[in-house]
Amino acid sequence: MLASLRVAVAQLAPVFLDRTKTVAKACDAIREAARGGARLVAFPESFIPGYPYFAMLLAPVAINESLQRFYAQSVEIPSTSTEELARVARESEVFVVMGVSERDGGTLYNGQLVIGPDGRVIGKRRKLVPTSHERLVWGRGDGSDLSLFPTEVGLLGGLICYEHSNALFRYALLAEGEEIHVAMWPGGMRSIVGIIDAAVRHHAFEAQAFVLSATSVLTRDVLSALGDSAVGKLSEGGGSSAIISPRGDVLAGPLGDEEGILYADLDAALITKMKTVVDSTGHYARPDVVRLEVDRRPQKLVVLR
Amino acid sequence: MLASLRVAVAQLAPVFLDRTKTVAKACDAIREAARGGARLVAFPESFIPGYPYFAMLLAPVAINESLQRFYAQSVEIPSTSTEELARVARESEVFVVMGVSERDGGTLYNGQLVIGPDGRVIGKRRKLVPTSHERLVWGRGDGSDLSLFPTEVGLLGGLICYEHSNALFRYALLAEGEEIHVAMWPGGMRSIVGIIDAAVRHHAFEAQAFVLSATSVLTRDVLSALGDSAVGKLSEGGGSSAIISPRGDVLAGPLGDEEGILYADLDAALITKMKTVVDSTGHYARPDVVRLEVDRRPQKLVVLR
Amino acid sequence: MLASLRVAVAQLAPVFLDRTKTVAKACDAIREAARGGARLVAFPESFIPGYPYFAMLLAPVAINESLQRFYAQSVEIPSTSTEELARVARESEVFVVMGVSERDGGTLYNGQLVIGPDGRVIGKRRKLVPTSHERLVWGRGDGSDLSLFPTEVGLLGGLICYEHSNALFRYALLAEGEEIHVAMWPGGMRSIVGIIDAAVRHHAFEAQAFVLSATSVLTRDVLSALGDSAVGKLSEGGGSSAIISPRGDVLAGPLGDEEGILYADLDAALITKMKTVVDSTGHYARPDVVRLEVDRRPQKLVVLR
Amino acid sequence: MLASLRVAVAQLAPVFLDRTKTVAKACDAIREAARGGARLVAFPESFIPGYPYFAMLLAPVAINESLQRFYAQSVEIPSTSTEELARVARESEVFVVMGVSERDGGTLYNGQLVIGPDGRVIGKRRKLVPTSHERLVWGRGDGSDLSLFPTEVGLLGGLICYEHSNALFRYALLAEGEEIHVAMWPGGMRSIVGIIDAAVRHHAFEAQAFVLSATSVLTRDVLSALGDSAVGKLSEGGGSSAIISPRGDVLAGPLGDEEGILYADLDAALITKMKTVVDSTGHYARPDVVRLEVDRRPQKLVVLR
Amino acid sequence: MLASLRVAVAQLAPVFLDRTKTVAKACDAIREAARGGARLVAFPESFIPGYPYFAMLLAPVAINESLQRFYAQSVEIPSTSTEELARVARESEVFVVMGVSERDGGTLYNGQLVIGPDGRVIGKRRKLVPTSHERLVWGRGDGSDLSLFPTEVGLLGGLICYEHSNALFRYALLAEGEEIHVAMWPGGMRSIVGIIDAAVRHHAFEAQAFVLSATSVLTRDVLSALGDSAVGKLSEGGGSSAIISPRGDVLAGPLGDEEGILYADLDAALITKMKTVVDSTGHYARPDVVRLEVDRRPQKLVVLR
Amino acid sequence: MLASLRVAVAQLAPVFLDRTKTVAKACDAIREAARGGARLVAFPESFIPGYPYFAMLLAPVAINESLQRFYAQSVEIPSTSTEELARVARESEVFVVMGVSERDGGTLYNGQLVIGPDGRVIGKRRKLVPTSHERLVWGRGDGSDLSLFPTEVGLLGGLICYEHSNALFRYALLAEGEEIHVAMWPGGMRSIVGIIDAAVRHHAFEAQAFVLSATSVLTRDVLSALGDSAVGKLSEGGGSSAIISPRGDVLAGPLGDEEGILYADLDAALITKMKTVVDSTGHYARPDVVRLEVDRRPQKLVVLR
Repeated sequence: MLASLRVAVAQLAPVFLDRTKTVAKACDAIREAARGGARLVAFPESFIPGYPYFAMLLAPVAINESLQRFYAQSVEIPSTSTEELARVARESEVFVVMGVSERDGGTLYNGQLVIGPDGRVIGKRRKLVPTSHERLVWGRGDGSDLSLFPTEVGLLGGLICYEHSNALFRYALLAEGEEIHVAMWPGGMRSIVGIIDAAVRHHAFEAQAFVLSATSVLTRDVLSALGDSAVGKLSEGGGSSAIISPRGDVLAGPLGDEEGILYADLDAALITKMKTVVDSTGHYARPDVVRLEVDRRPQKLVVLR
Repeated sequence: MLASLRVAVAQLAPVFLDRTKTVAKACDAIREAARGGARLVAFPESFIPGYPYFAMLLAPVAINESLQRFYAQSVEIPSTSTEELARVARESEVFVVMGVSERDGGTLYNGQLVIGPDGRVIGKRRKLVPTSHERLVWGRGDGSDLSLFPTEVGLLGGLICYEHSNALFRYALLAEGEEIHVAMWPGGMRSIVGIIDAAVRHHAFEAQAFVLSATSVLTRDVLSALGDSAVGKLSEGGGSSAIISPRGDVLAGPLGDEEGILYADLDAALITKMKTVVDSTGHYARPDVVRLEVDRRPQKLVVLR
Repeated sequence: MLASLRVAVAQLAPVFLDRTKTVAKACDAIREAARGGARLVAFPESFIPGYPYFAMLLAPVAINESLQRFYAQSVEIPSTSTEELARVARESEVFVVMGVSERDGGTLYNGQLVIGPDGRVIGKRRKLVPTSHERLVWGRGDGSDLSLFPTEVGLLGGLICYEHSNALFRYALLAEGEEIHVAMWPGGMRSIVGIIDAAVRHHAFEAQAFVLSATSVLTRDVLSALGDSAVGKLSEGGGSSAIISPRGDVLAGPLGDEEGILYADLDAALITKMKTVVDSTGHYARPDVVRLEVDRRPQKLVVLR
Repeated sequence: MLASLRVAVAQLAPVFLDRTKTVAKACDAIREAARGGARLVAFPESFIPGYPYFAMLLAPVAINESLQRFYAQSVEIPSTSTEELARVARESEVFVVMGVSERDGGTLYNGQLVIGPDGRVIGKRRKLVPTSHERLVWGRGDGSDLSLFPTEVGLLGGLICYEHSNALFRYALLAEGEEIHVAMWPGGMRSIVGIIDAAVRHHAFEAQAFVLSATSVLTRDVLSALGDSAVGKLSEGGGSSAIISPRGDVLAGPLGDEEGILYADLDAALITKMKTVVDSTGHYARPDVVRLEVDRRPQKLVVLR
Repeated sequence: MLASLRVAVAQLAPVFLDRTKTVAKACDAIREAARGGARLVAFPESFIPGYPYFAMLLAPVAINESLQRFYAQSVEIPSTSTEELARVARESEVFVVMGVSERDGGTLYNGQLVIGPDGRVIGKRRKLVPTSHERLVWGRGDGSDLSLFPTEVGLLGGLICYEHSNALFRYALLAEGEEIHVAMWPGGMRSIVGIIDAAVRHHAFEAQAFVLSATSVLTRDVLSALGDSAVGKLSEGGGSSAIISPRGDVLAGPLGDEEGILYADLDAALITKMKTVVDSTGHYARPDVVRLEVDRRPQKLVVLR
Repeated sequence: MLASLRVAVAQLAPVFLDRTKTVAKACDAIREAARGGARLVAFPESFIPGYPYFAMLLAPVAINESLQRFYAQSVEIPSTSTEELARVARESEVFVVMGVSERDGGTLYNGQLVIGPDGRVIGKRRKLVPTSHERLVWGRGDGSDLSLFPTEVGLLGGLICYEHSNALFRYALLAEGEEIHVAMWPGGMRSIVGIIDAAVRHHAFEAQAFVLSATSVLTRDVLSALGDSAVGKLSEGGGSSAIISPRGDVLAGPLGDEEGILYADLDAALITKMKTVVDSTGHYARPDVVRLEVDRRPQKLVVLR
């Protein structure tokens, strides 16, 4: 990666379930991060069009209206929404790592979208296992995108929320030489702040990589609109975005309940320094004892001859 | 595992480089933990005969005298030392998970020894990759012992220090259904307390298992005896033992610079509760995408026909 | 597909074994459906020039005269017959999905012909396995046309009669994202009305698609002309056309023994709504376990190298 | 299969979330079916310990207490519960096909258990894709059990509920020569009775096999206990069990809202009779055009060498 | 091999921890050896950028600054450094066997690099077991490069320093028909001159091969810079390079404390002459009693399907 | 092995081809070594009844008379000769490692015989590959005796002459933990003194074991008796016995042309000290890359089933 790289994490609340307005808000944040000197800016899980809290709070039998709206506001790739993000990324000359609910046919996916400073989509990936209530909303990705995004500023990887609970998912990325990891999470869930903290610091340590951990925050308006069932389950704010060093130290943040943009200057030498002690894919590995098998073949339903 | 199980972590300093006295001190601690109601007690890394700090502080060319003494005080399995531990385990009716420097022929290993309340050795394992300066002291284990110890109180696993930096080592254990994990660390190293904290809480979360994290403490006497080179590198005390829930919450500890025995009552239902959300080896796994290959064959130098 | 689309099913009897008159009758029906607001109208199996009942009722040794006449009245593509249909489709601005006995050299095929509102042939396909007595009349198609017809009103697929008994034929279409399925059947066979009912409702459910099921009816004149051997085998009328929702609900029909044109307004949101529950090609698929291999290569007799 | 075979379908309500009592009730039904002359008796989906309606009606955030109880009452295989079923199957000399929520480690599966008249477990399988709210409760099976259970009375296959929406799952079974298919469904859901009807009659037609379709019924007590949120979503009774011929005709049933045991005498000659017209795996197949790839390898997380 | 071949051993001191200048010095030596008639020239262990004496002399806790510099000055393959060596090899028309500290990702390896007179990299290998303090610096190679480099002047093999203590490593090479063996060692260590002498003469005898044994020398400047801790451990000079015949006789050298280039003319007939007495891989072998198993599979951490 | 052990090497000339007198001379030497404090004494290759120089010097066609005499004077095990040696070993309380030409049926073997201080034969072994002219005299041993002799003073191994040229033979012994190695050689061959020197010092280093290297000396009488053909081939004296440390240092010797008994006090700590640096069967091994397969099954000519 670059010897020195300024990065940003945008801890923002989306304009809930409004794709167009959330894209606009994201574009403002991209511009601001660029003005702040960042060359890469990461956003929270499913930032566009927001996290499907309704699936936690409503009974599955009562979910349909919300789900149809969420489906309608989800993001096709490419579409005018992604083109708008790309245009602003190009104007601002930054890399954008965006959490989106991706729509593909009749199925939605919890996705990560990476756009380069040249305005091109570098890649995207889909969460492999939706968590709990998310299974009512999102389908499952496959191994075809379980890999890094090579960029001129460094080898970039990403996982979403409880994907960080699966050591093999994480190893599949770090084994490729991950240098900058983007971890995306929802906001409004104070009860998992401790889990997030341990996960991102430990992944930084295992990967000897920088971690950009982006949560959103839950606004009072959205919280109220979610109704009484949210009381005691979700909380206003509930963010904990942070930027972590390859040793697991917190370089910036954590941000709490307020919106904001975190910045940190990443010193690539810290990776090397850490790897001389524990290089998980070099001198600290034991390929004679444990190896990871990754199936990157797209899972096609129909194979044409 | 048992529905409810009281466990203990002994954060103690060994009688440095004195196997006989350290065994005696360990036996006292086993008895005390038993009196405290514990049915299982875990000790720190290389508790017998102490952690080889000399290998950090002395130049390799100056290491020999210390190394020969360390070799002489290391533990053969079985030997009178292990028989003494076993006798006390039987009398106290507890499981003992002990960190030992194991001696086998001309090579030492950083080992974990598990003794049952019937006084039998249930098993042992060897650290797969010694860390940094440890490579001057200890050899490398193989995959033959990278597995759990089945006991009547639960499925028990263990790793030593920076083995926790390797996601595949950890997954090899948790994939077998680990319920209680013993993480062993040295004492006297305040600089890695943050790493330990993230590692044990995150492993608990990934494994949906209880973690008993045992560090030793460094006494003023031993620290002084290590000489000036230890200043700024090691610190008096430097423990951070803790007991963690399957959700990553701290149930007991962390203990700081003092010796002591931590206790916690483990409620097996917490494992199930966590697994309904993220069962890393069940509904949250993707064996169609990522699989771990483990080679458990002993690495024999000579194969007889 | 279009958010809302009015479609029609023409349950009519052909002018038996008279291509020219049947084409004329079809054109009248196209114009009527257009007047009724339909943008797409589907016709029964082998509507032009009629279904070869003779092959059921005559001994194969006695079939020749009927077969020669049937051959002569079958439809070449293109030909003046198809041009006439295209002209009327253009004038009426509707999509036409027509059952034809297609003549290609010395072989006939049980075919489906799709014409667009611009008067162009969008595509055609051939029944893969003729059923029973049909094997005396029609040849077998290949995989080259086992795919959807993309149109501006939606992704259109079609199968003929007992092709619906083959799960793989059906899956090959639905896996491409079928939105409107045209199922064609003969008339005059009351004994299979239950089979048709289950087939079209279940296919709608499996594909999360609308199904236009078109049967013809058998007139008293034609039935008499078929002679005594038809008694107890065929029945006057014998239609059961219907239009089905993606949930398997009947939106229009079934029509019984009389001729008529069925209409329904298709609400595309019903597809999405159903797919959030069972998307056979998305979140409800298991490509890691079952996959369909489709060979779409034309089955050429001579391969030039 | 046997030339003639009397089978039974038990449309019963479980003793809700009480494994022991439900097993006892199942045993009574087995004995009764045997007295009625049946040699095989099929039960509804997740009969032991009942269908997890709570996952439909409660918000995911409110599900935990119910889920822990459901976990505790689920069925390990083998266990005293399955041994009790096996004992009664042996005494009664019948085949039992039972719907169970199977517990394996931290994950539950929606399972089908087949026990023979010799009291041995012939096999079991797990639902490949849990539907909607079920994803909060059950994990996903793999291809290792997507196959038939060979018995002396015929080749037996089974699928659970909306697995019938996946043509490839169904074809994987029928392609092996399925003769008797057991389709399991929950009770209390009047809104899907039409889907069930089409699915089981169409599968019989596609497979040219007999189908035993078993739903449970929802009692007033359980419905009341589910609370107000069930109103308009679930209904008392709501069964529609039936026995279907290879032509798609209804041989017995459907039963409506009451408990009861259906019987039918299956005439194996009907299979052959149907196959002479449409043998989906013989003369009506087109392996040159469409083929199914099935991966029956168990999806192991860890591969040992 | 060639019937007669002039070879050289360059006993030189690197420009310590300065890759660019050491490459330049190596290039001068290559040119000189070529002028001296040599067609192959061997260099000492880790010649570029020098041997990591600091790891012997500094405590592991004090090693970091030195290690980072050593990492930075290590050699990537390919890189401008190796291209420069290749250019000079091509101009001088000699084979070059160079000791390098190879950098690959976050891990360094103690490497041997072989370049041909056509300027192409023929191959490279990595030390299998770093010795003592080297474990703080270098990772471990695998079996994938434990084999000979075939060249037009003979079958070339190489091992580094105490790899010569492992009979199986040596046999793996000689069993392939090794003709010219390059043994690399550091300089400045008078205490191991006797070990080097026995090792290279005995390997020549066991392999019936010529051995080019290359040590570096330690300059006064570098020795001073290493500080007081080096006193009594390292010595100025400390070289013992030599060229050995297949019978174990010394053909040239040993050189002592000074820099210099040794030359010898190798007579291939000596190999044959020795093999008629003891051919370790022919008439003097007992494959019925002892056999070597070599695993040459690269030890990959991730296996892609 | 014992912490400290005095050993002896008897560099003597046999009473040539006279078994009885050579046994007597050997017994005298055993008594002397015991008086000198030795607890173990080693003798040269084929000491009883002398080395078959005639096979070097006579043409094979002229060898018969000498060979018959050699056969007659060779040693059966057991026999009165071995019983006499055993008696004296017991009286003197020493271990004896004797070179013998063993007679077994019609075949002779170049053997090593080990007798304990209790007067029992501990074991014997046979040279695996006779060298050159020896093939006219001796047969080949098998793997059944390629192992160590466990004794109360240490793990004892032995090889004969050019067996030391085979790395696998040597590794088969050292892999078992060899502590004391007896290398036997003939006398009278000054030309191989350099080979012997390198072999025994290098084996000590590779095995981290003590080596007792025993050569005989050739007397003027015997040399004369061998006739003119010996001139320039053999030399009077020609011994080079020595005792070597696990580091390859010479502890005693080498003796030159005269008879004599060498003594050394072995300090077991030197093995450990060396193994902390290069333990060939522990931390310095790579069983994942190279493994030795040893077939210790006796090579039977007839296998009974």
